[in-house]
Amino acid sequence: MSTDFRSLIAAKRDGHRHSREELEQIAEAAARHSVPSYQLSAWLMAAFLHPLDLDETTWLTQAMAGSGARLDLSGLPKPWIDKHSTGGIGDKTSIVLLPLLAACGATVVKMSGPGLGITGGTVDKLKSIPGFRMELSPEELLEQAKRIGVAITGQTPDLAPADKALYDLRNATATTQSVPLIVSSILSKKIAGGAETIVLDVKCGSGGFMTTLPEAEELAAWLLRVGRNCGLNIRTTITDMNQPLGSAVGNALEVREAIDVLTKEPEQLPGPTRRFRRLCIYFAGEALAAAGLAKNEKEGQEAAQRCLSLGKAAQKAAHWIAAQGGPENLELASQQLPKSRIQLVVSARQTGFIERIDAASVGEIVIELGGGRKRKGAAIDYSVGVVLAGAVGDAVVEGKPLCTVHAAGETQAQTAAAHLSDTFKITNRPVEPADPVLKALP
Amino acid sequence: MSTDFRSLIAAKRDGHRHSREELEQIAEAAARHSVPSYQLSAWLMAAFLHPLDLDETTWLTQAMAGSGARLDLSGLPKPWIDKHSTGGIGDKTSIVLLPLLAACGATVVKMSGPGLGITGGTVDKLKSIPGFRMELSPEELLEQAKRIGVAITGQTPDLAPADKALYDLRNATATTQSVPLIVSSILSKKIAGGAETIVLDVKCGSGGFMTTLPEAEELAAWLLRVGRNCGLNIRTTITDMNQPLGSAVGNALEVREAIDVLTKEPEQLPGPTRRFRRLCIYFAGEALAAAGLAKNEKEGQEAAQRCLSLGKAAQKAAHWIAAQGGPENLELASQQLPKSRIQLVVSARQTGFIERIDAASVGEIVIELGGGRKRKGAAIDYSVGVVLAGAVGDAVVEGKPLCTVHAAGETQAQTAAAHLSDTFKITNRPVEPADPVLKALP
Repeated sequence: MSTDFRSLIAAKRDGHRHSREELEQIAEAAARHSVPSYQLSAWLMAAFLHPLDLDETTWLTQAMAGSGARLDLSGLPKPWIDKHSTGGIGDKTSIVLLPLLAACGATVVKMSGPGLGITGGTVDKLKSIPGFRMELSPEELLEQAKRIGVAITGQTPDLAPADKALYDLRNATATTQSVPLIVSSILSKKIAGGAETIVLDVKCGSGGFMTTLPEAEELAAWLLRVGRNCGLNIRTTITDMNQPLGSAVGNALEVREAIDVLTKEPEQLPGPTRRFRRLCIYFAGEALAAAGLAKNEKEGQEAAQRCLSLGKAAQKAAHWIAAQGGPENLELASQQLPKSRIQLVVSARQTGFIERIDAASVGEIVIELGGGRKRKGAAIDYSVGVVLAGAVGDAVVEGKPLCTVHAAGETQAQTAAAHLSDTFKITNRPVEPADPVLKALP
Repeated sequence: MSTDFRSLIAAKRDGHRHSREELEQIAEAAARHSVPSYQLSAWLMAAFLHPLDLDETTWLTQAMAGSGARLDLSGLPKPWIDKHSTGGIGDKTSIVLLPLLAACGATVVKMSGPGLGITGGTVDKLKSIPGFRMELSPEELLEQAKRIGVAITGQTPDLAPADKALYDLRNATATTQSVPLIVSSILSKKIAGGAETIVLDVKCGSGGFMTTLPEAEELAAWLLRVGRNCGLNIRTTITDMNQPLGSAVGNALEVREAIDVLTKEPEQLPGPTRRFRRLCIYFAGEALAAAGLAKNEKEGQEAAQRCLSLGKAAQKAAHWIAAQGGPENLELASQQLPKSRIQLVVSARQTGFIERIDAASVGEIVIELGGGRKRKGAAIDYSVGVVLAGAVGDAVVEGKPLCTVHAAGETQAQTAAAHLSDTFKITNRPVEPADPVLKALP
């Protein structure tokens, strides 16, 4: 044990404010494993119960960002845009947004971790594309971003090692849900990854990290303020995660839906997918305006619409997927996605309007089907999942399809189908559709 | 990591009250090392900041007491008396009290740990007697207690292992100073050691575990209430630790002082030693009354006085020391104690009255001389220490002795002497002597 570190624990235990130097000491200790984890976890609980203030959070973020290697984007054309979501059910936004922003003239370099729990990770979704390589070295990442404007990797071992150490400990010690600790974790990785302009999607609802609007607002406001303190050009929006985003939940199914958005006109898409498309265009508008590629959000959205309609985003996506080892065009990519053995349609039990589709429950059902992880490192069946026929506000007719279960076996399909019926709440009265954007922070 | 344990951490983090079963789970996890220490330490910090209530403390105490082996005293004559002190500078009370209580008809079985920091341990003091064995097996301990009524051991590895695990972690994570955790630590070991009647000495002052009277009162009240909840026949007294107890501070020097109290009449003893003797008799009175060997405290004190004057306590002490491997009589024991190479007298710089002798400073000086441990497992020089010529309230004359330094070398002696002069505060006005007993709890 370290007696120096013990006095840091005692200071936070007593509610004292840490200096920048003390937070650098803590980040350093976590990154180098130079103090025992039982001392770090005692500090985490003290910092959970006496939360860090804005300055402390800024200092910790910067210290964690500087605790390992940093990605140097300086050789790449500007502007650089990154996008991050706190994670939600059916959230495949990055798969559309990354090539879309690149097609609009930005350089988009993204690092992404594997999913854990009910919210899947972008890494897993893209890995369902046969051949797709998520393990790019920093050199490959930069070379590809320079060449085609977009690159993604799941390999981030030496960036922000302090965050990795603290993140694992927080998970084990019930100290995850602390806004300053969440903020420093998210932003330190982004800063170490070279981010400049960044759009942040704070999911709010039963399937999100934050379940209530006040909680989501607090997190979003802290992300914005700490991000700006750290010199990031940052935009933060709170979006709806009470129902799943789009129609597909499950890795390969979500990739197919993203490819549909990239390749089809809106009128060819089912209702829930159109709702998902609107969110992609919303975030594109935010990002293009923030990065100076559009005069304002409205013009940014229009530019993104054009890019989609003209097939430029699809073309960029095809280059991107091929560059990372996937099939050479989107049609092939979509065809070659793994398909589940069983597809079972779940029919509506009554006629009416969809009032609620509980996102968390859908996420849990997909995990049970094998499409997500309960434990770190567990294997995933990319083919399984659920495709919803409607979103909140849509009309349903008794005996007509409500959703389709994609499962590896008959029993799992039946179990999932039974649970899915319960996650839909159908009412007689018309229900207002739910806008995917809940609140944009100024 | 354990997800079950994480929910226990979360419960205490949110200020919920644990059930008896939950506290049993925690004690079990600590004893068996079945959850990682980083989870235990997160729980400790949560329990530090949301302190356990009386019931929770009682349940944790009982669970820790039951977490390993228990000493079965049922073959020994009743009453059984144990004594515990929170630790102080010059506190050699046990060395007098154990044989004194045995001479008065009690069976006294004590387990004691090594000292750490400024307050030395009884184990180290007794080990300064040549040949004295502190490592008795449970069988030897019980056999000796049955035969002569008194036995002590430093070996307690399999009793209350949950306490051992939590105690070490608390020390490393700045979660030591929590009254419920202190109480459960002290009492669980006593209960596992078979205690029935127990007198507890809560030291208060600069050299004690608690430095202010309100803190000491809180700890004493909790010890009393939790102890009674656990079925102990317990007495708690707060005693003065602003000045050292008695004249000697340092292992062999303290043993010699204790032997002096056992073998000499009060009028043969120096002032500070007489003050120490009064405390021994006070605790003997409490213990004998509590155990039913005296009608009340006053009669208990009179019985103890008689036992001392008639040499019965000295005789019992001689049997005890010889039984544990020491010299066959007290005179030999006293003669054979290690002596330091250097004895340096520190003279008073002015004439007046002793207003203050800072106990903590004297303790630190003795550690610097090599008589105590800064780190667990460090070696100790039994011969070194300080002998005070007076206590608070005594008159001193310029140029006459204030105290004597016992050191291994000239340089250490000079350094200690310089520091010691500063720990004495001398004033012109007469000063009231300080009663060693501050407050007895009803």
